[in-house]
Amino acid sequence: MFDKILIANRGEIAVRIIRACRELGVRTVAVFSEADRGALHAQIADEAICIGPAATKDSYLNVKAILAACELTGANAVHPGFGFLSENSAFARNCERCGVAFIGPSAESMDMMGDKATAKQTMKNAGVPVVPGSDGIVKTVEEAKKIAAEIGYPVMIKASAGGGGRGIRLVNREEELEPSMIQAQQEALSFFANDEVYIEKFIVNPRHVEIQILADGYGNVVHLGERDCSMQRRNQKVLEESPCPIMTPELRAKMGEAAVKAAKACGYKNAGTIEFLLAEDGNFYFMEMNTRIQVEHPITEQVTGIDLVRQQILIASGEPLSFTQDDVHLTGHSIECRINAENPDFGFRPSPGKITALHMPGGPGVRIDSAVYQGFTISPYYDSMIAKLIVYAPNREEAISKMKWALAEFLVEGVDTNIDFQLDLLRDPNFASANYDIGYLGRKLKAKADKQ
Amino acid sequence: MFDKILIANRGEIAVRIIRACRELGVRTVAVFSEADRGALHAQIADEAICIGPAATKDSYLNVKAILAACELTGANAVHPGFGFLSENSAFARNCERCGVAFIGPSAESMDMMGDKATAKQTMKNAGVPVVPGSDGIVKTVEEAKKIAAEIGYPVMIKASAGGGGRGIRLVNREEELEPSMIQAQQEALSFFANDEVYIEKFIVNPRHVEIQILADGYGNVVHLGERDCSMQRRNQKVLEESPCPIMTPELRAKMGEAAVKAAKACGYKNAGTIEFLLAEDGNFYFMEMNTRIQVEHPITEQVTGIDLVRQQILIASGEPLSFTQDDVHLTGHSIECRINAENPDFGFRPSPGKITALHMPGGPGVRIDSAVYQGFTISPYYDSMIAKLIVYAPNREEAISKMKWALAEFLVEGVDTNIDFQLDLLRDPNFASANYDIGYLGRKLKAKADKQ
Repeated sequence: MFDKILIANRGEIAVRIIRACRELGVRTVAVFSEADRGALHAQIADEAICIGPAATKDSYLNVKAILAACELTGANAVHPGFGFLSENSAFARNCERCGVAFIGPSAESMDMMGDKATAKQTMKNAGVPVVPGSDGIVKTVEEAKKIAAEIGYPVMIKASAGGGGRGIRLVNREEELEPSMIQAQQEALSFFANDEVYIEKFIVNPRHVEIQILADGYGNVVHLGERDCSMQRRNQKVLEESPCPIMTPELRAKMGEAAVKAAKACGYKNAGTIEFLLAEDGNFYFMEMNTRIQVEHPITEQVTGIDLVRQQILIASGEPLSFTQDDVHLTGHSIECRINAENPDFGFRPSPGKITALHMPGGPGVRIDSAVYQGFTISPYYDSMIAKLIVYAPNREEAISKMKWALAEFLVEGVDTNIDFQLDLLRDPNFASANYDIGYLGRKLKAKADKQ
Repeated sequence: MFDKILIANRGEIAVRIIRACRELGVRTVAVFSEADRGALHAQIADEAICIGPAATKDSYLNVKAILAACELTGANAVHPGFGFLSENSAFARNCERCGVAFIGPSAESMDMMGDKATAKQTMKNAGVPVVPGSDGIVKTVEEAKKIAAEIGYPVMIKASAGGGGRGIRLVNREEELEPSMIQAQQEALSFFANDEVYIEKFIVNPRHVEIQILADGYGNVVHLGERDCSMQRRNQKVLEESPCPIMTPELRAKMGEAAVKAAKACGYKNAGTIEFLLAEDGNFYFMEMNTRIQVEHPITEQVTGIDLVRQQILIASGEPLSFTQDDVHLTGHSIECRINAENPDFGFRPSPGKITALHMPGGPGVRIDSAVYQGFTISPYYDSMIAKLIVYAPNREEAISKMKWALAEFLVEGVDTNIDFQLDLLRDPNFASANYDIGYLGRKLKAKADKQ
């Protein structure tokens, strides 16, 4: 086991990692920016080192300063948390070069999964379902028609050089294919000076269902069930739950098997998440792999009883997994709401400032992962998270009830929050009936805006 | 289900009950004394009514004011919590007479268990092991010798009218019996004007192990395993854990069976606890039954996954238990530390006052049951509890580690606390090896005092 771990992060995830280290008897080093002098993670670590000014490029992304802090404190491992340097393979390589263990996968695995095209090809080769489509560029309408007929309508025509929604056409029927393809090519040409397009199946109203995996250094890979993260605003997860409310044991076994295959295909080690699109017909498709711990990891911990950050550290220190797939059981239901300092009535604009009063709920089945306290000032330099509010109950109905009341009891003064927004979501009949997909929240917010 | 429940209590247990009510969709009425205007329980309930001045006899023990509050608010049930009126059968009768359900056992069950002699006789008749001894008064030394030989040495000779440790003698061998009995009789005569004595087996270094039971109104009784509450100072529990670290499945089954028998013997309904002395030889003896929810109930909730306060309300509303004994499984390990505003260096004297800074730990496996907040003033009128800090982990070793670090992170300014005292206890090798009995903490504190 490592003697001392440096946590190259801030906020609640830094606090979360420090707690896991301490329980393993490992000393901790926090790094903090000048804006984070009063931050909790810097206060509860055994040692804390200032690594630069507030701007993230000068502090939390400052590789040199972080490696110097390792050198100075004698830390023999780095935990990158999420965000910042967590998916930066050059940083991982630099750590290893300095004799500091990087608590995460190898730089090679990160690279394989970091490039979307490589990742998709790797998955396809490994037999993991990917969104069906053309193998690269489609030149003629005849070719397009043939592929579309194979993968089935609706399909998307996408510009190879595309971005920002330009050069994309949704095609519902064969008779629309030719005009849509011509339009897409023309638009692509005028915007990107490149008229190359490819075809992909359009997944209608999918859910975002991701599988958590753990892989040790001895070839053992287990999956820990799924998280439903379909409640998103502009690709940002707002609320997550585990299990996915529409999951079946058969589908979980299939998705879990695919996730394990995906991890093995890139020689993965440590904790990782394979994100899938789950279509209405029960088919699922690889989206991407997150090669790090995720914000929403606590809900998996609640339903499996497995401490993921602890496992990350154990794996990185060379321990084999102490359990097999058969030992993993999902019990009960867990929901996480991200409580942010932001104003949902004004486009969710961040609301940094000093927390003048704070009361967080507690009691049975309530977990708080937070790094704020009454008197703490939420900085405009970083994300606006106040806390992750996590509930756990024997079933989904009780978990929803618990979350409603935990939200109602949560009191923050001094900054705006999204607590009432989350409460409104919890009370939405479509949430109660689990009738939501990745587009649901966007449509709901748009309908509300249109009405005003 | 009840429409509205009045909570005849204050502090963390009132908050705990309010949370359980809300999750069941039941409206809540808090009652508060003039000293508790700023108390959390009064703030988070749907309604709150002042029931009198600070002194408990004028407020939280003021039956008339509490029943008037029920009348005024239309509450159709009362939850008494623990302490205050929770074991007052006259209050329970008064509630029922006013058409208000008392969330607890019947007044008759309370009376049967409230009187120690009646309780012991009831248990003996039901076949629940009680501390062996004479059937009432022992008149002659010959009689005493006969009984002592039967139950085995050491024995205690106790004055019938005794109290405060007077008229009690510990007898280790037969040859000590005659002089000890004469001394006890003489002391009893001079202190209580009554020389009657009886004999009881002296249990050497027992543990306090209690069994939680739930009984519905249809004759179903299940036990939820045990709590070890041996860590006591002057009969006050300081730290509790579940399971008991020296428990075996066989002994648990035996003690659980005895507890179920005890509950059935007094026609018990609702949640209750049977306290046993567990001797070094594995024999156990009924001490008393607590006919209410207990302070340390959360550790049982953590290892069984069953919400005891929710069950209390369901049972009182007429629901049958939704599970059987076979459904109850103990998983993992839970420890509770009572965090009080008190000064262990000055005889644990209470330290009321304003909490000027507060940070409570969080994260996986950490549960806080509390009713304080930064800026709250702990009143000298009531108990000095700040919070119950509860941890849950897959095994005892990890639970101890988690508790150590949760205590280390717990920050309270403005009042003295027993946090460091608890931390010292957690680090005690005798606690780590589970080598402690009900006298352990007393001996430890005495040894420390003698050294100074």
